[in-house]
Amino acid sequence: MAKSLADLRCSVARSLDVIGERWTMLVLRDAFNGMTRFEEFAESLPIARNILAARLKTLVDHGVLAREQYQDRPPRYEYRLTRKGADLYPVLIGLFNWGDAYLAGDDGPPLDLTHHKCESPEAHPESVVVCRGCGEHLTPRDVRRSA
Amino acid sequence: MAKSLADLRCSVARSLDVIGERWTMLVLRDAFNGMTRFEEFAESLPIARNILAARLKTLVDHGVLAREQYQDRPPRYEYRLTRKGADLYPVLIGLFNWGDAYLAGDDGPPLDLTHHKCESPEAHPESVVVCRGCGEHLTPRDVRRSA
Repeated sequence: MAKSLADLRCSVARSLDVIGERWTMLVLRDAFNGMTRFEEFAESLPIARNILAARLKTLVDHGVLAREQYQDRPPRYEYRLTRKGADLYPVLIGLFNWGDAYLAGDDGPPLDLTHHKCESPEAHPESVVVCRGCGEHLTPRDVRRSA
Repeated sequence: MAKSLADLRCSVARSLDVIGERWTMLVLRDAFNGMTRFEEFAESLPIARNILAARLKTLVDHGVLAREQYQDRPPRYEYRLTRKGADLYPVLIGLFNWGDAYLAGDDGPPLDLTHHKCESPEAHPESVVVCRGCGEHLTPRDVRRSA
């Protein structure tokens, strides 16, 4: 049996090997929300500091976050999404949409995200599957495996 | 400290509480690929049968998969994506795209998915974030928290 998701010849498995650990997507959620500093993440997430440090290190090791020193004495670092990290936005918004649709409590979705330049009452971000060729919205029935 | 992701007032955390366990998204990958039977999942996934059974039960308990008997003697069940489960397609394709883009080996992406009605050489499914109001493609900079 494969010990690691990374051993599977599957792009979904390999992605999960990098970002599928518990709490990792919430670190990324906070990074997308503009957080960059260890203390900001630590305040936001109900996890032990050593777990947070391990998750940040994994993300830096895989090039999802870039770690940069912003202060000399004492040395302090900030964590910023790379292009590779930013490309996880559809995954994050997909999880966000699904939770809003199916897991919100009686008091409604916890957080409202708005496309600030759009005046429509429906100006909310949504992850959708489209065809890279023709732009059409796709369901699983429109897609077949070709290799 | 919160013991469970479900305790957090966040739609991303709540989604991960349901589908964030190791191997769960690969069970869903196989369901999107048309698998319905325990033996099919068991053959596809390098995990112990009791783990697979537990993951399927979680997905059924949360209404992501529906369990239906298809044979009497002995009783056999199949697992089908519900509407709630099918709505995870953007998350799955987002993970697939990201793995293809950043984690493919020298021999290229493992699997090619094609929009079969489209003749473009770029006829591949892609998860993108758009505005539900105006349809524009969105980056994190286009979105703000409004609550």
